[in-house]
Amino acid sequence: MLCNDEMRKGILSRLHGYRFEHTLGCERAAKFLAGRYGGDAEKCAFAAVLHDMTKQLSKEEQLNLCEKYGIIPCNVEKNEPKMLHGKTAAALALDEYGAPQDVADAIACHTTGKAKMTLLDKILYLADYIEDTRDFPGVEKARELAEQDIDRALLYCFDQTLIELIGRGKLIHSDTIAAYNDLVGQGVCWRDA
Amino acid sequence: MLCNDEMRKGILSRLHGYRFEHTLGCERAAKFLAGRYGGDAEKCAFAAVLHDMTKQLSKEEQLNLCEKYGIIPCNVEKNEPKMLHGKTAAALALDEYGAPQDVADAIACHTTGKAKMTLLDKILYLADYIEDTRDFPGVEKARELAEQDIDRALLYCFDQTLIELIGRGKLIHSDTIAAYNDLVGQGVCWRDA
Repeated sequence: MLCNDEMRKGILSRLHGYRFEHTLGCERAAKFLAGRYGGDAEKCAFAAVLHDMTKQLSKEEQLNLCEKYGIIPCNVEKNEPKMLHGKTAAALALDEYGAPQDVADAIACHTTGKAKMTLLDKILYLADYIEDTRDFPGVEKARELAEQDIDRALLYCFDQTLIELIGRGKLIHSDTIAAYNDLVGQGVCWRDA
Repeated sequence: MLCNDEMRKGILSRLHGYRFEHTLGCERAAKFLAGRYGGDAEKCAFAAVLHDMTKQLSKEEQLNLCEKYGIIPCNVEKNEPKMLHGKTAAALALDEYGAPQDVADAIACHTTGKAKMTLLDKILYLADYIEDTRDFPGVEKARELAEQDIDRALLYCFDQTLIELIGRGKLIHSDTIAAYNDLVGQGVCWRDA
């Protein structure tokens, strides 16, 4: 067993308020998607429980963890250190919770996506986006697509994220473009023909 | 003189139909922007005259020029070889028309943009976008911004281009994101406060 009840409770006890509710929602969604697409439900759930455990950290604490674990922030991450919470949570997952490498990899890319995402990567990214407590514009469409086709759902998420970042004048991470280009290059399209 | 009347006529004679009209429009806009922002009008006009001279080439011809001039297409360019016309025109500008390096550099990035664009790069990119024959949605706003602030106008162009590519499910070039992030990182914002 990757994560027994005691470990799960220990991880969840690090989370407060909305982040606690969101993590439980993400765990449920990850299990649902694992069942829907033949993923490893235990790994998906473990990744979900761990994915946001460093999100509440300050900028300084994020950067200290980066230094400790040899994570080198890119220019975009230097400007938006919150974006590092996936990579720092992945490092802690490996170091403190004995997570397998593929679980840590999924946690590391859950905020930005990346090229060549595994099924586990995709499930965590999508679970984080569609879980029940989310209520931003477009989430219903993402849920609808998530029931039908994981790649179309993912591309929809990247499209919405990119448009939202551009609309708010925010920096765009190169991994998000790599993820978008990877799906587009495979001929994925979420729009109805 | 970088480009005498005879050379200019020779270059323009390679262009047909709409591309000929567009190039003359781009030359006018480039001269206007050079005056507005203190650019080198002669270099801006020369870059404009040369910028699209390989756009009519077939995929095979583009790739042959790339091989000849040591241009290595990225994955996005391999999928969209038309995107290479800036780089191939830049190579011909240097090789056949004795263009200065900064003129060639502006031509090379006129389709995608890039990080750390020079004033000449910016003027050619923007002239190409706003010249008189253009009539796509948003061009009026781009022209309005181009009279006020070249960086705000450029960011508007990148925003519109990115949103249009996402809407059409097209690949995004990493240089366009680098250009966007560069301006956003400098605090540029085209939206009124």
